[in-house]
Amino acid sequence: MHVLKLLRDNGPLSQVELGDRLALPRARLLPELEDLRASGLVQDGGRAPSRGGRPSTLIGLAPDIRYGAVHVGATSLDIEITDGYLEPVARISDEVDVKAGPSVVLSQIGLLFGKLRSGQSFDRLSAMGVGVPGPVSVGEGIPVSPPNMPGWDRFPLRATLGMEYGCPTTVDTDVNVMCAGEGHRGIARDVKDFLFVKVGTGVGCGIRLDGRTYRGVKGCAGDIGHIQVSSRGPECACGKTGCLEAAFSGAALARDAEAAAESGASPFLAARLAASGTVTAKDVGRGAIQRDPVCLRLVREGGARLGEVLATIVSFINPAMIVVGGGLAGLGNQLLAEIRVVIYQRSLPLATGDLPIVLSELGPRAGVTGAALLASEQLSWQFPPVSQPR
Amino acid sequence: MHVLKLLRDNGPLSQVELGDRLALPRARLLPELEDLRASGLVQDGGRAPSRGGRPSTLIGLAPDIRYGAVHVGATSLDIEITDGYLEPVARISDEVDVKAGPSVVLSQIGLLFGKLRSGQSFDRLSAMGVGVPGPVSVGEGIPVSPPNMPGWDRFPLRATLGMEYGCPTTVDTDVNVMCAGEGHRGIARDVKDFLFVKVGTGVGCGIRLDGRTYRGVKGCAGDIGHIQVSSRGPECACGKTGCLEAAFSGAALARDAEAAAESGASPFLAARLAASGTVTAKDVGRGAIQRDPVCLRLVREGGARLGEVLATIVSFINPAMIVVGGGLAGLGNQLLAEIRVVIYQRSLPLATGDLPIVLSELGPRAGVTGAALLASEQLSWQFPPVSQPR
Repeated sequence: MHVLKLLRDNGPLSQVELGDRLALPRARLLPELEDLRASGLVQDGGRAPSRGGRPSTLIGLAPDIRYGAVHVGATSLDIEITDGYLEPVARISDEVDVKAGPSVVLSQIGLLFGKLRSGQSFDRLSAMGVGVPGPVSVGEGIPVSPPNMPGWDRFPLRATLGMEYGCPTTVDTDVNVMCAGEGHRGIARDVKDFLFVKVGTGVGCGIRLDGRTYRGVKGCAGDIGHIQVSSRGPECACGKTGCLEAAFSGAALARDAEAAAESGASPFLAARLAASGTVTAKDVGRGAIQRDPVCLRLVREGGARLGEVLATIVSFINPAMIVVGGGLAGLGNQLLAEIRVVIYQRSLPLATGDLPIVLSELGPRAGVTGAALLASEQLSWQFPPVSQPR
Repeated sequence: MHVLKLLRDNGPLSQVELGDRLALPRARLLPELEDLRASGLVQDGGRAPSRGGRPSTLIGLAPDIRYGAVHVGATSLDIEITDGYLEPVARISDEVDVKAGPSVVLSQIGLLFGKLRSGQSFDRLSAMGVGVPGPVSVGEGIPVSPPNMPGWDRFPLRATLGMEYGCPTTVDTDVNVMCAGEGHRGIARDVKDFLFVKVGTGVGCGIRLDGRTYRGVKGCAGDIGHIQVSSRGPECACGKTGCLEAAFSGAALARDAEAAAESGASPFLAARLAASGTVTAKDVGRGAIQRDPVCLRLVREGGARLGEVLATIVSFINPAMIVVGGGLAGLGNQLLAEIRVVIYQRSLPLATGDLPIVLSELGPRAGVTGAALLASEQLSWQFPPVSQPR
């Protein structure tokens, strides 16, 4: 266990307690703490309450540690600045069109960071974590052939941001980042093996096995959006037909909602279209709540498609929990009910017996929470765990 | 790394080489070796060739180590006795009906072990590994609600065999055992993340992630036989309809072959039925080789069903290799071709780019090879790895 992680997750600890939790004798702990103090990451915070013996020094994370957490969605950009304990200090959001390419999006990120800096939420960043809506080679810190991010293929995102902000930077796929966030501070915080299913503009799945993100051999594990759910079905952005994402996703719902509004099949959606000039996936959710038959059908059919894919995956990987998040998680219980029915019907009873299928607890903050976590882990990497004496 | 594993996988090593490979100084290695000698597991084998300095003692595994490897299939029973290097010393096979229940099968196992013992291939067993065709709680060493093994639910298999043969015993699902064998000595021996798909009387999948068997939270990961592949489809032994296993497996093929033989739709199968009074899944394979249209169609359609399930799984878990084994792997290239087409067509190009989909190298020996490996690992567990000095 790292000193830095222990402090991050527990708050300030007395020197004695740190030694106990790390099972380290004083003689090995002290030089480690000295290194961390010298690098400005930890500092003494007075005397800890005595446990009977000599009063012990209280060790905490330096109050000026600042992590930059960036979550780039297909259409939204969220940035959060946190302290060393991952507590948010400031946050800012904006709309974004990730298809506009890296230079537009990066200058937008720069603008938001500029606002945060002038608002004095940070002076310099200790580390940065970034999630983007496409496959990433985490080792290189670059997007790799991201289908929904034209212009981003192999763009040196980590290098560019790391240079710009002068701090270690990690880049990962948005869904992995959200999954890590939910596993650290969300509903899956005590769960080691779970899936985080993101239903947003696209559909993806974060895989957490034994407490770690599982990426597969090429880094594309969890890319369930292009699993074929019907042999005909609508054409997908990827060029194939019948992909899950083409049948059910934010983009697919918006397309179907527009058609239902224009044809008049859904009075609710037609009214929305007339009122605002456009209908979105979120309107389908609102329509379902108001029991508009077309909206209800779209959510049900979509949930069933997603449920079928997840049923196969549940039988295969036998997870402890499924967390549903992303923009369309707003469809809420209606969607969840449909997914549950299909999974419970189709998967092995042994695999579904105690399987909670739940909504994300962090909601729209899952991404930035995971990104801040990613940022913090980089500091830990620089200070490898103190080895225990044998 | 364990001394025992190092010797098992490399053969006898000089004391110097052992110390080098374990990065252990002499002073720490010697007491460890002394313990292993005292327990009769390793012994000195004379002088190793000098590497310039003092000649070093050659350390080998005791020649009387014997592992009992038991593979219980739905209809077959294979037992192999190996030495400490997992080299087979003797083997014996028999037909079995696992549905006859534990007492019948155990007495059959006893009979075969009796023959092996009287043939002097072993005097006493050092450890035993057992694979059975159903879900197993590995920790307890018992089958758990195995759908194809009536009478076996929660039968204390490990305890019974361990008591009978006076040796540590591990029990696991057959497909996990075969998967471990293929990963250790078969075609996947250098591959850390792969799937072993068993197509036999039933269908199952072993999951190897990062060099270890992944079991899921309830131990039923990889149980892909009851994934629904069609909403109608034939009824399955599990009570549901449309399961993969009901559409394609040894049992399903035999059922379809019989129908095609009786209706005369397949002259080839009708001739087999007339000649031998029965037709089996293997006859379908033989018919496909002779290009009997019905047999070809059955293999193609079955391969496509299996391929569809695997395509979803490949997109989800992004493995480095898929190994196809089990009794129906004898359908061979015809089956493989069909599986490949569907997976390559349906899964993400990134996930299928370098994905070998190959037949098991160990074939019918995958099970006993894995079972012997399981047996050997128990000895290693008793002697925890020597810790490295820091």
